[in-house]
Amino acid sequence: MSKLADVTTLEEIKDIIAKVVAEKNEKGGVKNVYCLACGGSYASFYPMEYFLRNEAADLPVHSVSGNEFVHATPKALGENTVVFAMSLAGGTKETVEAAKKAKAAGATVIALCSMHDVPLEEAADYTVIYRIDIGYPVDEQNQIKILALAVELLNQTEGYEHYDKMVDGLSKISGICAKAIEQVKTSAIKFGEKYKDEPIIYTMGSGASARVAYMQAICMFMEMEWVHSSSIHTGEYFHGPFEITDTQTPFMIFMSEGKTRPLDERALKFLRGYAKKIIIVDSKEFGINTIEDEVVEYFNPILHWALALEYSEGLAKAKKHPLLMRRYMYKVEY
Amino acid sequence: MSKLADVTTLEEIKDIIAKVVAEKNEKGGVKNVYCLACGGSYASFYPMEYFLRNEAADLPVHSVSGNEFVHATPKALGENTVVFAMSLAGGTKETVEAAKKAKAAGATVIALCSMHDVPLEEAADYTVIYRIDIGYPVDEQNQIKILALAVELLNQTEGYEHYDKMVDGLSKISGICAKAIEQVKTSAIKFGEKYKDEPIIYTMGSGASARVAYMQAICMFMEMEWVHSSSIHTGEYFHGPFEITDTQTPFMIFMSEGKTRPLDERALKFLRGYAKKIIIVDSKEFGINTIEDEVVEYFNPILHWALALEYSEGLAKAKKHPLLMRRYMYKVEY
Repeated sequence: MSKLADVTTLEEIKDIIAKVVAEKNEKGGVKNVYCLACGGSYASFYPMEYFLRNEAADLPVHSVSGNEFVHATPKALGENTVVFAMSLAGGTKETVEAAKKAKAAGATVIALCSMHDVPLEEAADYTVIYRIDIGYPVDEQNQIKILALAVELLNQTEGYEHYDKMVDGLSKISGICAKAIEQVKTSAIKFGEKYKDEPIIYTMGSGASARVAYMQAICMFMEMEWVHSSSIHTGEYFHGPFEITDTQTPFMIFMSEGKTRPLDERALKFLRGYAKKIIIVDSKEFGINTIEDEVVEYFNPILHWALALEYSEGLAKAKKHPLLMRRYMYKVEY
Repeated sequence: MSKLADVTTLEEIKDIIAKVVAEKNEKGGVKNVYCLACGGSYASFYPMEYFLRNEAADLPVHSVSGNEFVHATPKALGENTVVFAMSLAGGTKETVEAAKKAKAAGATVIALCSMHDVPLEEAADYTVIYRIDIGYPVDEQNQIKILALAVELLNQTEGYEHYDKMVDGLSKISGICAKAIEQVKTSAIKFGEKYKDEPIIYTMGSGASARVAYMQAICMFMEMEWVHSSSIHTGEYFHGPFEITDTQTPFMIFMSEGKTRPLDERALKFLRGYAKKIIIVDSKEFGINTIEDEVVEYFNPILHWALALEYSEGLAKAKKHPLLMRRYMYKVEY
């Protein structure tokens, strides 16, 4: 049995970014950033995109689904580009192709994956190792690595005024999640029992957690449990989607702490008036406020996702439909 | 009865952008662009975001849902920012607030709306007037104005090598759509009759049309017809969502011509193998190829949306559920 690869530490991430920035500075600096991946990995990059979009003065970032990047490659890609490319097993074909294309254009590529000697690593300049799954502590998972990469990249280029608060948050979030996971176990089992026969479950969120809602919809409900789903941004809800609200349709809402909470609260208030099946996953109930106000919003997705995994497990048990059961993936050609 | 406002022409758009660029050049140039709106308007901005993301060397663009921009305002917003803010009736509260916030920070704000003397215009420096609805020709609609604004902004700042081909395309697309609308009427009626009792219809697309799929889902199916829906990017489909594919679930796929067509073709091939209810809206069947290869992909959303309106009308008629029937909008507090 081969030994598990060592998970990259936050100190090592700081060093990787220092090397990348030094290399880029010889060529005029970092001018843009792309996050390339597919599905759950694509969604997991969103906290980096959201953080840089809101905190950077001059460091544009875009996350692009792997195969779209391969076929419709942006003209801004070049030797001043930093690319993050993620694939759990390191073999996702579209992401590997996208990383190769980026490297060939002169970009520096940082691979995020769970093992060494995989195709994605071969296409990259640096590797960040993570593990995801129920049972691994949050500080080994990709979400925390991604946020650390974003924070280091901003701080080592433009500087970031709340850097120390982010570092403090990064040191606390794994403990917050571990406690929250214990706290939510009963609710997660009850959720599964109550909603096991629902044909559709909507998910909702905002801010850094907008794509936690997306990931819960496409990976957990659609892929793993074969339940129809769609993710709705709580700010978009009132501009179309809310018309399907009724007492029969379930909504799982990821309530964020921080700047976009008013959007989530407005959506929840409406749901309380016109829906009956509401599943609330609220960061505020799980001790996230020990992280400083200026940066707390960026930690919502890490906590939300840790809790989402528990809820998904609860649904899988009640449905007697194991999370890893597939009808197409690894079984048919596509 | 008040006279309809004159629709802004492409020549006028060119002039507006010339003024904006001249003003910004006095302050160091245009450094970034935000597209601010909600729901269908937010989705309609995507062709601008996609075009600039792929064609600009150094003109970062982000579209942000209005209320998220109000509460989580990006630090890059400032006097070198150009903001496009859109609301059909010009009164969408979140978008008006977002525009005000942008203007207060020194950004130049271009309002897109369908009439003058509305709150959004008061918060803006320039106004672009458009009309949307079945019956108005495509060259009066917002999609074409948005693409023209994006093309002018890029050409008048960095320059754009395929500018003439885009101008040629802009002159052709309205005629292509008018013909396509006639061509699709029978299919649209048949679609309505066949799918009128479906509880859920998925939508799919890629590239510039990714958010046509989103708009069809949230505005047409969810808002107007109270049918459950979710939009799936054809590149993301194989990374989760495809596991819900079966012979009972309908998928409406917007097939694009141009760079991302291989993504759509791959998804369609899979659907043909494992689904039975497939609605194909294929740009290629409607003469879009008279537009030059280098720019054709950017015109897909205009054609797709013209056709989507017909399909939506077909569904509304078959369901005897008028498109403008609402249960919450304008009826309850939210």
